[in-house]
Amino acid sequence: MDELKPAIVLVEPQLGENVGSAARAMLNCGLTDLRLVSPRDGWPNPRAQAMASGAREVIDGARVFETLTEAVADLQWIIATTGRRRDMVKDELTPVAAANEIRTRCAAGERCGLLFGRERIGLTNEEVVMSDAILQVPLNPAFRSLNLGQAVLLVVYEWFRAGDQTPARQQLDDGHPRATTGEVMAYLDHLEEALDASGYFKAEEMRPSSLQVIRNIFTRAELTDREVRTLHGIVTALVGRRRDQL
Amino acid sequence: MDELKPAIVLVEPQLGENVGSAARAMLNCGLTDLRLVSPRDGWPNPRAQAMASGAREVIDGARVFETLTEAVADLQWIIATTGRRRDMVKDELTPVAAANEIRTRCAAGERCGLLFGRERIGLTNEEVVMSDAILQVPLNPAFRSLNLGQAVLLVVYEWFRAGDQTPARQQLDDGHPRATTGEVMAYLDHLEEALDASGYFKAEEMRPSSLQVIRNIFTRAELTDREVRTLHGIVTALVGRRRDQL
Repeated sequence: MDELKPAIVLVEPQLGENVGSAARAMLNCGLTDLRLVSPRDGWPNPRAQAMASGAREVIDGARVFETLTEAVADLQWIIATTGRRRDMVKDELTPVAAANEIRTRCAAGERCGLLFGRERIGLTNEEVVMSDAILQVPLNPAFRSLNLGQAVLLVVYEWFRAGDQTPARQQLDDGHPRATTGEVMAYLDHLEEALDASGYFKAEEMRPSSLQVIRNIFTRAELTDREVRTLHGIVTALVGRRRDQL
Repeated sequence: MDELKPAIVLVEPQLGENVGSAARAMLNCGLTDLRLVSPRDGWPNPRAQAMASGAREVIDGARVFETLTEAVADLQWIIATTGRRRDMVKDELTPVAAANEIRTRCAAGERCGLLFGRERIGLTNEEVVMSDAILQVPLNPAFRSLNLGQAVLLVVYEWFRAGDQTPARQQLDDGHPRATTGEVMAYLDHLEEALDASGYFKAEEMRPSSLQVIRNIFTRAELTDREVRTLHGIVTALVGRRRDQL
């Protein structure tokens, strides 16, 4: 059986562009189950198709329902995205908490859905009451306005991220192995020798601290062996040029 | 001194709409320092202003530079957003790791910037090399296409979220206190009594397990005292109706 993934339910979306942009965001995050409740401009919608571009499979596979009850009839846990506080007793989750909740429930075999309301007025209280929980995206309280496509993007991205294995930080390489400490030290000796010959160390008593600064620059750079060869080449070239000038 | 926040640098953006949508995303997340490097259609741009709508303060405050070097001259740590792997030795961070890194650096007084490239071709290798690190948004490998406004939204949202104190899960209330265990038990006794009188428990040996199921439904519901009163009312009404029917 395929891994269960949440359905995205758009309730009475008004603009086809937003449906298309929601479809793109879904496919960006590996989701394909799009359900539409009474889209205002009917279905199929050429504007939704145009905006979806590369995500046509999501648009073409979208299912249309007359009521929200029909759209979520087969689901077992649904969460309603809202932009404002409701006066009701219900768990309210951040996108990250909702993502983790859905991952856990899907892994246990539950069919889940994320509900998004109309562009202007969102979901009605009746629709929110139907839901098992509420999702609200924390944003700058002074400017919370988010369009439908953006709201879907943020929410499905957090779902994707909750299952994503990309290391938080990785060092890209140039195909060459990290230099050994011996290679780095050999370069630093080469540099020190060249600096000695050039009269860089004007005062002998400053020499230890100057060397410490120089050595630190290169040891913390986590050089590859190719980069160390490049640095050797630079010193050799500069020394050569100085000799030519003499 | 105000808390330091990262600058958003858009390099040669082509569509004013995308600049406007980036400005909205920035203000959604409390950011206002927008810098533009040679926007294709000049500046100011009416399309950017129209798309920014409520975020006009960000658009109107945007600064325009001829080169990236000028745009980032005062910054101390910059990270380049890229959509594809580069053949260079550089740390690559996810949006979350980048957000945490920027939060830490800003808290230590460093001025940071997030770089975003042109719609079609992104940042050049030269521009990426200028940066201290690389940011790549993990997405569905089969459909990674994200427009400029959406890329900015995801990245700045993760920055916002990294500093946001909203509890992952909180229970909304209806202004009434959570019911005490005693109140819930009194309701369950009321219900049990009514069920007894109605002949609900057909077989006495099933009574303990039935009661356990019923009691569990209501004890895990974390009721408020108002809800408990509502439930009492329901039982009373149903009992009354049944009596009327006899």
